[in-house]
Amino acid sequence: MSLTNSSPVSCAQSASLASHTLTILPLAARNDALTAIHAALVQHKPDILAANALDMARAQRASSQGELSQSVLKRLDLGRKGKYEDMLTGILDVRDLPDPIGRVDLRTRLDQGLELERVSCPIGVLLIIFEARPEVIANISALAIKSGNAAILKGGKESSESFEAIAKVIGEALARTRVPVGAIQLVKTRDVIDELLDLDRYIDLVIPRGGNELVRYVKSHTKIPVLGHADGLCSVYLHKDAEKDVAVKVVVDSKCDYPAACNAAETLLVHEAVLKTVLPSVVEELQKKGVSLRCDEPSKTALTAVLSPANAALLQDATEEDFTTEFLDLVMAVKTVPGTPPLSNATTSGDTLLPNGHSSASTASEGEEEEEEEEEADQPALLRAIAHINTNSSHHTDAIVTRSSASAEQFMSAVDSAGVYWNASTRFADGMRYGFGTEVGISTNKIHSRGPVGLEGLAIYKYKIRGRGQSAGEYGEGEGKRRFLHQKMQI
Amino acid sequence: MSLTNSSPVSCAQSASLASHTLTILPLAARNDALTAIHAALVQHKPDILAANALDMARAQRASSQGELSQSVLKRLDLGRKGKYEDMLTGILDVRDLPDPIGRVDLRTRLDQGLELERVSCPIGVLLIIFEARPEVIANISALAIKSGNAAILKGGKESSESFEAIAKVIGEALARTRVPVGAIQLVKTRDVIDELLDLDRYIDLVIPRGGNELVRYVKSHTKIPVLGHADGLCSVYLHKDAEKDVAVKVVVDSKCDYPAACNAAETLLVHEAVLKTVLPSVVEELQKKGVSLRCDEPSKTALTAVLSPANAALLQDATEEDFTTEFLDLVMAVKTVPGTPPLSNATTSGDTLLPNGHSSASTASEGEEEEEEEEEADQPALLRAIAHINTNSSHHTDAIVTRSSASAEQFMSAVDSAGVYWNASTRFADGMRYGFGTEVGISTNKIHSRGPVGLEGLAIYKYKIRGRGQSAGEYGEGEGKRRFLHQKMQI
Repeated sequence: MSLTNSSPVSCAQSASLASHTLTILPLAARNDALTAIHAALVQHKPDILAANALDMARAQRASSQGELSQSVLKRLDLGRKGKYEDMLTGILDVRDLPDPIGRVDLRTRLDQGLELERVSCPIGVLLIIFEARPEVIANISALAIKSGNAAILKGGKESSESFEAIAKVIGEALARTRVPVGAIQLVKTRDVIDELLDLDRYIDLVIPRGGNELVRYVKSHTKIPVLGHADGLCSVYLHKDAEKDVAVKVVVDSKCDYPAACNAAETLLVHEAVLKTVLPSVVEELQKKGVSLRCDEPSKTALTAVLSPANAALLQDATEEDFTTEFLDLVMAVKTVPGTPPLSNATTSGDTLLPNGHSSASTASEGEEEEEEEEEADQPALLRAIAHINTNSSHHTDAIVTRSSASAEQFMSAVDSAGVYWNASTRFADGMRYGFGTEVGISTNKIHSRGPVGLEGLAIYKYKIRGRGQSAGEYGEGEGKRRFLHQKMQI
Repeated sequence: MSLTNSSPVSCAQSASLASHTLTILPLAARNDALTAIHAALVQHKPDILAANALDMARAQRASSQGELSQSVLKRLDLGRKGKYEDMLTGILDVRDLPDPIGRVDLRTRLDQGLELERVSCPIGVLLIIFEARPEVIANISALAIKSGNAAILKGGKESSESFEAIAKVIGEALARTRVPVGAIQLVKTRDVIDELLDLDRYIDLVIPRGGNELVRYVKSHTKIPVLGHADGLCSVYLHKDAEKDVAVKVVVDSKCDYPAACNAAETLLVHEAVLKTVLPSVVEELQKKGVSLRCDEPSKTALTAVLSPANAALLQDATEEDFTTEFLDLVMAVKTVPGTPPLSNATTSGDTLLPNGHSSASTASEGEEEEEEEEEADQPALLRAIAHINTNSSHHTDAIVTRSSASAEQFMSAVDSAGVYWNASTRFADGMRYGFGTEVGISTNKIHSRGPVGLEGLAIYKYKIRGRGQSAGEYGEGEGKRRFLHQKMQI
């Protein structure tokens, strides 16, 4: 890694040049570089934590003056229990993953002596723009080197001491390896983001790691493809047959495990049939953890009827905006999903909710058996929950709690999100948890990479053809033309 | 398909809605729709060709007034031999391809009763903007439906009669299938491209199919990801050990098979050792086909010495610009690649080219054997050719002609292009030829899809987790925490 004060253009040029060396570097050379980085980070932990402490002290002053949020403070703290060790483990995990480069995933005999092969290769030059989390720089360096990509890193000012300390350690470690110096560059000069975003000639992919505003800004200021997520508005839907214990565990963890994370749940959708059965236990547990609940009218009415007065008094009224808000805090919006028949008929008096599945008047179905199944599953409610999520969620991660495998499968097929879970916390949306070693970010893009992006997301492929001088004009449907064989070959 | 005069927003909204139905439509329903489209296009061939004849007549008038290029005329002509049949075959080829949707390519046991699965799914809503080729509308409709995507189609005015005729036939055919009407929409209103490009809320991917200008315009006017190629500047490199017959076949086909195509070669790189041996035969054959050659000084000098005066007189001088120009016509730029030692020492007198591999003065090598190998391969020349291509080509498709497997493999690893070929014409860069059925376009992007994009390029994936109520907080490295199993499971 080089710490550079040079201009964005020359920085990008040298990264591009380095990427041409990296792309043909064997796996062993890339792995050796990761081993060297890991050892250096172990050795220099005290220096790095000391630098991080400087950042933290400055951030705490800013926070006490209301200039910095608690969630940024949390992200900044490299001394937080287990965080440094997670960073170190992540590097070795990446090193020990299979090589993402040189993988052949398609081989076709076009004709005798004319073979097509698709083989994975690095993307080229990555631009990573990040805010507070100092461990990102180590993660990204490991992922970039392992995948044969050059990376230009631009960190936020909050972590500048930590970044410099880590960059120095990594740079010294890399200097003793075959990875070229220009391969990983930390840009120190300020206010260069716009210039960097303009360099689509040299930079192949931008990965902004930070809040919504950063990602939105990047997306609207560059022609370079952007990998990331602006929002993390995740939902949990409690279906009519949700098991109470499962509902409590999934919702509480989704909301409370790390509320500042993008994979924390913000919206709780609840089938009207479980407003008074399952939901109260969920709410009590959330309230114990300090979560403020913003409830729509039916859920507030139902909860007020069954909760203790003290708990009921804590409930707030939801506005429409609450269902499209990423709180990133101990706040959760609760919305009722009408069952069959629609809620409008059933809740005018506030307490005449129909018992489970005892009406199917509005359910179109063709046969007795099917009708019963649909009654059990409450298709209309499921469809309403799916529609709410597809319209309002950020297509990040959404979960359903249900006993029914059929309902869960339908939910997972129809919900258009990177992660669709059945009876599991949205917090599992994470590269480490998925077993990817570490992650370069979580993507809500609809192309290339979706969800937690690990090593594979940093590779693309090229097509190789090995021939004997064939011309394309020899082949075709007409007379005297050769036909393609298009035989699948062993990989 | 619906022919719509409605506003871009309502068109995009209804496509988005239709995509939610398409995404859960079984394969049989999608295939039935393709069968119906094919049958209808067979039945209404005369009507469609009649409409195309109207477009052609208008285009010929424009062409005779110099307002339309010959290459656009060619692309427009659906009556050209084999073109309509290719279009029909393409639809059935797509139908008969394996389902790109619902494919599981990763399955991991995170823990007992907690399983992660990655499964392919449609991208959502595609916006296809195209110019002249009328068959694109059928290809795209087939690819979109098969892959479960909705598509908004905006065609160029040159083919409007053809587009309308085909859209009408496809629309009538689809009305009798389970594919929703809004799934494929041909936008007829003019000047709506900017409005469509602004609808990143509903549209997930833009695919511009047309000339450089269209693609550049689209890329700089939208936040939606763009799949395509602005340029098709392909090269062929004749290495020092190129076989003459192979060189002639590969270069002539790459240049002449269809000069207006993006995969036609524009630049011919020639190792100085074969300027007088291999190149003359290549040039004679190209000149027979009417190709104008723009040569750099060393190649022109060498060719002039050996060609007949009549042939030599046809050679033109190349400017630097010629090596970064996509001619799309019977023009080719010829550049000499200096061997070892550098050309500057060897060609001052114009005819003192060193015989192959008899000097290695400038070649750094560690052992006798290695030295000999490098001499044979002429590493420095190979590296110069690679560097020229990586700097000047459009990263589309580039070929090397060589007897040496080692040189070919090095070229294919180091050249950063979607297609890297050994002894084969650049014209093979095509979805049909690759066996993809038909193609949605050729991409020079570095992410998602590269090279000819078939069905797989229109799919993305989602992650499903099936659990029993696990919370992420249960897992970790600390005491009392559960460890992830991360077991690979059978797919």
